Amino acid sequence: MKVRVHVSLKNGVLDPQGRAIHHALEGLGFTGVSDVRAGRLFELDVADTTTDEQLDDMCRKLLANMVIENYRIEKVA
Amino acid sequence: MKVRVHVSLKNGVLDPQGRAIHHALEGLGFTGVSDVRAGRLFELDVADTTTDEQLDDMCRKLLANMVIENYRIEKVA
Repeated sequence: MKVRVHVSLKNGVLDPQGRAIHHALEGLGFTGVSDVRAGRLFELDVADTTTDEQLDDMCRKLLANMVIENYRIEKVA
Repeated sequence: MKVRVHVSLKNGVLDPQGRAIHHALEGLGFTGVSDVRAGRLFELDVADTTTDEQLDDMCRKLLANMVIENYRIEKVA
């Protein structure tokens, strides 16, 4: 089973990487960008028997920092 | 308009970060994980007038390294 985990910063958490990208886009001449947030994406190949609880566990224990980040699990196939 | 850009390594490109995460998951006792690939995720707030070509341009010029990475643009709302 293919699983995508999207990890993004919680609202209110400063995102210097996103700000730098925003600034760089403006420097390249792209107008109309009002905000950029940077996050991480993990594509996992897991056994079909893997439960939702196990996936949640992986995210909470390793993939995301629950103090400042949210995660979203998407099952692809 | 909210846009998500998913950047992931092309097939065949070595992914040491993904391998380290895979190893760590096994160390934590999660069995059944056969592969992990790490990527990046960008959430952009852009003007509604932004064209698909402009978004492609942003990805090719800044957000993704087209030599080793693929990108996928997803319009959220």
